[in-house]
Amino acid sequence: MNTIVWQKKDLLGLEELSREGIELILSTAESFKEVSGRPIKKVPALRGKTVVNLFYEPSTRTRVSFEIAAKRLSADVINISAETSSVRKGESLVDTGRNLQALKADIVVLRHNSSGAAQLLASHLDISVINAGDGWHEHPTQALLDIFTLKERLGRIEGLCVAIVGDIAHSRVARSNIWGLTKLGAKVIVCAPAMLIPEQIERLGVKVNSDIDSALKEADAVNVLRMQFERDEKAAFPTASEYLKEFGITRERLQKVKKDIIVMHPGPLNRGVEIADEVADGAHSVILEQVTNGIAVRMAVLFLVAQGRERLYETTH
Amino acid sequence: MNTIVWQKKDLLGLEELSREGIELILSTAESFKEVSGRPIKKVPALRGKTVVNLFYEPSTRTRVSFEIAAKRLSADVINISAETSSVRKGESLVDTGRNLQALKADIVVLRHNSSGAAQLLASHLDISVINAGDGWHEHPTQALLDIFTLKERLGRIEGLCVAIVGDIAHSRVARSNIWGLTKLGAKVIVCAPAMLIPEQIERLGVKVNSDIDSALKEADAVNVLRMQFERDEKAAFPTASEYLKEFGITRERLQKVKKDIIVMHPGPLNRGVEIADEVADGAHSVILEQVTNGIAVRMAVLFLVAQGRERLYETTH
Amino acid sequence: MNTIVWQKKDLLGLEELSREGIELILSTAESFKEVSGRPIKKVPALRGKTVVNLFYEPSTRTRVSFEIAAKRLSADVINISAETSSVRKGESLVDTGRNLQALKADIVVLRHNSSGAAQLLASHLDISVINAGDGWHEHPTQALLDIFTLKERLGRIEGLCVAIVGDIAHSRVARSNIWGLTKLGAKVIVCAPAMLIPEQIERLGVKVNSDIDSALKEADAVNVLRMQFERDEKAAFPTASEYLKEFGITRERLQKVKKDIIVMHPGPLNRGVEIADEVADGAHSVILEQVTNGIAVRMAVLFLVAQGRERLYETTH
Repeated sequence: MNTIVWQKKDLLGLEELSREGIELILSTAESFKEVSGRPIKKVPALRGKTVVNLFYEPSTRTRVSFEIAAKRLSADVINISAETSSVRKGESLVDTGRNLQALKADIVVLRHNSSGAAQLLASHLDISVINAGDGWHEHPTQALLDIFTLKERLGRIEGLCVAIVGDIAHSRVARSNIWGLTKLGAKVIVCAPAMLIPEQIERLGVKVNSDIDSALKEADAVNVLRMQFERDEKAAFPTASEYLKEFGITRERLQKVKKDIIVMHPGPLNRGVEIADEVADGAHSVILEQVTNGIAVRMAVLFLVAQGRERLYETTH
Repeated sequence: MNTIVWQKKDLLGLEELSREGIELILSTAESFKEVSGRPIKKVPALRGKTVVNLFYEPSTRTRVSFEIAAKRLSADVINISAETSSVRKGESLVDTGRNLQALKADIVVLRHNSSGAAQLLASHLDISVINAGDGWHEHPTQALLDIFTLKERLGRIEGLCVAIVGDIAHSRVARSNIWGLTKLGAKVIVCAPAMLIPEQIERLGVKVNSDIDSALKEADAVNVLRMQFERDEKAAFPTASEYLKEFGITRERLQKVKKDIIVMHPGPLNRGVEIADEVADGAHSVILEQVTNGIAVRMAVLFLVAQGRERLYETTH
Repeated sequence: MNTIVWQKKDLLGLEELSREGIELILSTAESFKEVSGRPIKKVPALRGKTVVNLFYEPSTRTRVSFEIAAKRLSADVINISAETSSVRKGESLVDTGRNLQALKADIVVLRHNSSGAAQLLASHLDISVINAGDGWHEHPTQALLDIFTLKERLGRIEGLCVAIVGDIAHSRVARSNIWGLTKLGAKVIVCAPAMLIPEQIERLGVKVNSDIDSALKEADAVNVLRMQFERDEKAAFPTASEYLKEFGITRERLQKVKKDIIVMHPGPLNRGVEIADEVADGAHSVILEQVTNGIAVRMAVLFLVAQGRERLYETTH
């Protein structure tokens, strides 16, 4: 039994969390996981609460996962996407947030292209903010579901070695995973072409290894990042098949490493680029389990921040 | 009382259904129809189930009809439109479907521009898929609501003669109607300019008649297809008024046929093109009844596929 | 206790309402306001009813406010935006409305760019229509929430003096406020550059004063309209800061007027254009209270029109 309680009204990133805070989310997620296996996938925990998905970047996957999580907690969900919002009329993020607070929303789930946006919003509001990805900064619920999946599969995080492969420099998923995994006592290796490794990344407590095969050799699990060919890095890699050859996770590559290595990917997959078909769909892959666990983790986070906010009010008001 | 039970997890088209299967949907729809007439339009049949509207083509009418049907069954509904989805990031239909399954969605309602998309998706998933229109192939719930409306009005389908008028070649509505009506023992006449009649359509058991007036003379009901001027057929018809004159359903035309002929249209209407105002709004028209019946038919289909999937699990797991 | 009852199925504008009708909405809103302060923000008043937000213009603020209001009344909400709707296929507003009625929707909340659209729709349907802004004509729920906020703050409307500042000519918010305030016995001053004052506006019972400082001097409250720089008026004002200087509500300006003057704004704010930061966020501002009250007012309107429609049916059917 976890005896610590959640005290925060927000979830902004894993950097700000203690090991105990992360473990509390994971154990809460564990208890919510069975809800999605019931014939009636619904608990009344957030009935009568209003959850707003405020998305300044399109991300159907994350929005849908939060929307389903909130609805399984019986919350009312409002979706706002920047394309059709007042943003077009130039209203600032903080003004939009203040309006949502005035509408008596309880939780804002924010996806934003600027690093620090969630922090900024949370500091101006009394209601809860959950960071659903801010620029290249953090994407804490993605890392939490990755870690949840690892722990479910391997029974622990402490002492594991996890390789993160891909565009580390521009990945909030990598950053949140690094914070979470190192706090829980795992060893993290980042692996990518040199230009995609941020300078001084070692300061976060990770090891850099640009040789994919030797990085994989040590790893209990590999987290394969999506190659963001939408961004402007394209020039660096002549072709997608070139990337697959140099850094892609292929069957051949996995035959030379620990035989029960776990392969994770935050999705959506670029099949044949950063991951080969037969790996994505193979025995090592836990990619769809990650998606399933995302619901449990997000239910836990929604539940805990709502509770944390209530505790704050008891104390400060 | 219908003694047969629904055994399928999906509804992909009417071609694959038996007469009994179609009749089961129609009788189930009949029992759901009264729900939308109640002061509280809600039954708990799908409470705690997650229905996803996955639309790769915009279709507000069909999406809204399914969304209302699902909500009246107390399901949670998630809307995904291709414009804002991971599709933009190049994820395949099957990967998107697998993700929805991993999120423990129960039913995916799929609208897609490719013929066979629903079949493809259903074959890769354990959860239910309902075809809400796939390319030029099928749109089974539209045909079912057309047939439901006919039966409600005329008391039977067996022995009726139904004329389908318009762009038969590119119409999934026509195709599903042909399968459904012929299986239930109706006679079907298709009527259009020659270039809009697919070759060998007679093999589906229909009669071709390019003379609209003689086609109507025989008919107990006419189903008027929307002229898809959005597509590239425009060249063939110099003007919309030209089409109205040659093939449009006008009051003058209806004065020469069975005096209780029924006029159907799947909507949205091109008034003054394939149908004249005074016919669309006149005594022969059942166009708005079709819309009403669409809710009952979709409630029935959602309910039956959910039940069918449960039965499959009992048997195979 | 209010002894009059609501008899209308629609809310189209404040011009058509009696003083008693407006007061009934305000008192009903008062009783709904506490719902949004509860831990479980939900009452079953519209359970099993279907509310459709039909928006031909994007307006996240108004849509979200109605969506939250409807959900707190336990209604099912369907969102339709013109960008993705059948509108693209050229269906008329009335045909779309008839379809929604055939789907057994109960209330259509309509935002439309044409003046008179809500009236047109309501006249063709038996179900309820709420005008959520039609062209330059009316935006009754915005004015009602403005008036509700004023009354809550100042205890009355009768005898107050309210200045409306900004683009009066193109503002449905101004127009609805003028109808509502004058019916309730307030004095209204409109204040703007001459070209933004419609001719013969005095006929509505308001006073025109183009000198902002003398207008403010008399006022108990000022309602600051958003400068619609999206529209084509730009040419008239060389810069936004020029507008701020001439007509903007600044701290300096407020220091010369009644010391408890109330500042309202329908949002979204153009900070530094029609309103200075320190005013928007200052002690005079009730801008966020307006947003909060919008939920209560819209719950009241949704509730009353649903009730009004039932009464009409009892009488006429």
